[in-house]
Amino acid sequence: MAHEIYTYPKSRELFTRAARFIPSGVYGHLGPAEGCFIPIEAYPLFGERASGSYFWDADGHRFIDYMCAYGPNILGYNDPDVDEAARKQREKGDCMTSPSSVMIDFAELLVDTVASADWAFFAKNGNDVTTLAVMAARAYTHRKKIVFFKGYYHGISAWTQKIDYAGIIEEDVVNNIYIDWNDAEAVERVFAENKNEIAAVIAQPYMHGNFKDNELPADGFWAKLRKLCTENSTVLVVDDVRAGFRLDIAGSDHYFGFEADMICFCKAIANGYNVSALCGKEFMKNTISSMSYTGSYWLSAVPFAAGIACIEKMKKLGCPEILIAKGTKLKKELIKAAADVGWDLHVSGIPSLFYLRLADDPSLMVHQEWIAECVRRGVFFTSHHNHFVNASLTDEDIAETVSVAKEALEVVKLRHPEL
Amino acid sequence: MAHEIYTYPKSRELFTRAARFIPSGVYGHLGPAEGCFIPIEAYPLFGERASGSYFWDADGHRFIDYMCAYGPNILGYNDPDVDEAARKQREKGDCMTSPSSVMIDFAELLVDTVASADWAFFAKNGNDVTTLAVMAARAYTHRKKIVFFKGYYHGISAWTQKIDYAGIIEEDVVNNIYIDWNDAEAVERVFAENKNEIAAVIAQPYMHGNFKDNELPADGFWAKLRKLCTENSTVLVVDDVRAGFRLDIAGSDHYFGFEADMICFCKAIANGYNVSALCGKEFMKNTISSMSYTGSYWLSAVPFAAGIACIEKMKKLGCPEILIAKGTKLKKELIKAAADVGWDLHVSGIPSLFYLRLADDPSLMVHQEWIAECVRRGVFFTSHHNHFVNASLTDEDIAETVSVAKEALEVVKLRHPEL
Repeated sequence: MAHEIYTYPKSRELFTRAARFIPSGVYGHLGPAEGCFIPIEAYPLFGERASGSYFWDADGHRFIDYMCAYGPNILGYNDPDVDEAARKQREKGDCMTSPSSVMIDFAELLVDTVASADWAFFAKNGNDVTTLAVMAARAYTHRKKIVFFKGYYHGISAWTQKIDYAGIIEEDVVNNIYIDWNDAEAVERVFAENKNEIAAVIAQPYMHGNFKDNELPADGFWAKLRKLCTENSTVLVVDDVRAGFRLDIAGSDHYFGFEADMICFCKAIANGYNVSALCGKEFMKNTISSMSYTGSYWLSAVPFAAGIACIEKMKKLGCPEILIAKGTKLKKELIKAAADVGWDLHVSGIPSLFYLRLADDPSLMVHQEWIAECVRRGVFFTSHHNHFVNASLTDEDIAETVSVAKEALEVVKLRHPEL
Repeated sequence: MAHEIYTYPKSRELFTRAARFIPSGVYGHLGPAEGCFIPIEAYPLFGERASGSYFWDADGHRFIDYMCAYGPNILGYNDPDVDEAARKQREKGDCMTSPSSVMIDFAELLVDTVASADWAFFAKNGNDVTTLAVMAARAYTHRKKIVFFKGYYHGISAWTQKIDYAGIIEEDVVNNIYIDWNDAEAVERVFAENKNEIAAVIAQPYMHGNFKDNELPADGFWAKLRKLCTENSTVLVVDDVRAGFRLDIAGSDHYFGFEADMICFCKAIANGYNVSALCGKEFMKNTISSMSYTGSYWLSAVPFAAGIACIEKMKKLGCPEILIAKGTKLKKELIKAAADVGWDLHVSGIPSLFYLRLADDPSLMVHQEWIAECVRRGVFFTSHHNHFVNASLTDEDIAETVSVAKEALEVVKLRHPEL
């Protein structure tokens, strides 16, 4: 049975309206100006509502959503338990002059849940907490240099952007050192060449960057990094903003068998309610306490209540293991569907955060065509960014996804008989 | 009639719990580690609920709240119209893969409301938008230097912090120039000495800093600044995060009779829902469009719906004029109460954001004692930070405030017969 092909007249109208008064119309990952990772004509630009594993766009089309708001949707959109906890807290108070005791409850729950957490500090963006971690590492070590792994994304502060980004000056990034992921020798060399100068190493739990296959840590790579940081009194910061709670409820460092000095969470921590957290080891607590770092809404109580409900429900459901199981099932069936048309689909990363690449076309353009045909048929994949699995995704959703993906593969295959 | 004197056993217990797992226990303005501006023993550390112009602390005491969550509460806590708009949007969707069309509605409303806004860009923190403004100014001008006015607060990013703050390195602030507020000659000199080097001047609409009387712009100061920025192709950024919508619904630049190139809003924009906005002139739009700047929750639809409802209600009620009228009434009566005990109370700033100082004691300690006695009796003032007025504050609240302030003055006067 052929799937319906979506068109987006209302999204286009809305985009025209948006572009008048909003720079680039839609910004972030979704913005055409960002080189959105899907051919623009296949793309719904505005969402009207969402529920469970679906969202509906401005034209009323339903999508099985594998972007999950780029991470926050981990239990399913509008999860009733999280929303009810948030509603109850809202009746009492949200953004008040004094923080609510739910802030303490949330900190206690995180310390109890996250293996490397002796404390928790809350903010609003992932970027707030990656930035706090790096500033705290500089304050603690009285050093300046920061080691990054190429392909990283740690937010939008100047220290983490690239020198060729608009608005960045050389002073912002002059203390940055960039190493290839999994290059243990380079790490050793950099530590040797910068003795007593490296404040922090910051890294995602594995390389889930854009435009290339996601790369897990090589055997012994994290152990070596952990050892070198300890030996050199360098602070090891794990940026778990994207992967957090999709590998291991105790933190992605725990998944890979080591302990970060500080670990950054955002996205999935409260199923979309606006909160982020920095957790860390006892030895960093006084430094964080000494810092001047806050924001207008950082004590808002509703996101704390939502975060508590989200983490408790993840534990009850057995997240992230069930997400990895769902992702693994989908991965196998997608690979098989591609094989059925004679193509080689590479699926990389942890399956709850899977990255897709049709390997037959090195230009990636055929891959983009395939993704476009999936999106037009109601399966919201993206071209060169990892995907996200949520707990409300059903076997029926997966079956429908595979059916769409297969039809899309056949359509694109017809266009490219040479492959 | 003597007012009840509050004590805080539950707040103390909660603080002990909080301090175990949260760096400094409570952070931000409220944290004892920040040198909270009220003698600690007079201070409720945790709030349980809030409504209208009041919040209730963990011990069940009601406070008439003149901090308004440090700004966000502008209509009254839990405003029914804002909460209903937010609830309706939440039922549809909040943090989704695609933005909702309410983002466009909110941008259109801001452009229609704010005099200097040709466009709007949304984020989460005030700091997100002050930082975007400065980066955009650097991108647009291809210059590095930023002019600040001493006593400023523009958030917690490294570029805006002080060199002696924990975690700040010299590279973060090497391009910063600091001038005294209202010093027109210094502004001229700095422009002359840094020809074609100043990317931006960033300033609050008036100097509402801590620990000193707030200072309105001198006659002609804004006109001179505006003229010098234009002549030197320097971008003029107004940080209206704190004062926004409490001076003028069209922006505090409009209140003072000039137009900013970019203006930053947060706090009062959505009555506590978590959203901030950068607005600006047409000539900056392409630069903003070219920047890589986003965050996990920046497209969340609920705060946009709340922001629309908040601004519409402010317009309907006649905010901020009614806030200024309430603040003016309170100011007059507080000055009279102080005069009645023979003391000289200075009230500075715009009355909707009033700053208090008992001028008889240059050490400010007697002032702190007075504030402490007010807080213990249920009037939440703070010592050396401006206050905030909200629309739900009634004449009865003001009368009770004055009664408490008077009793507190008499108590402190007895302790200090020498003054």
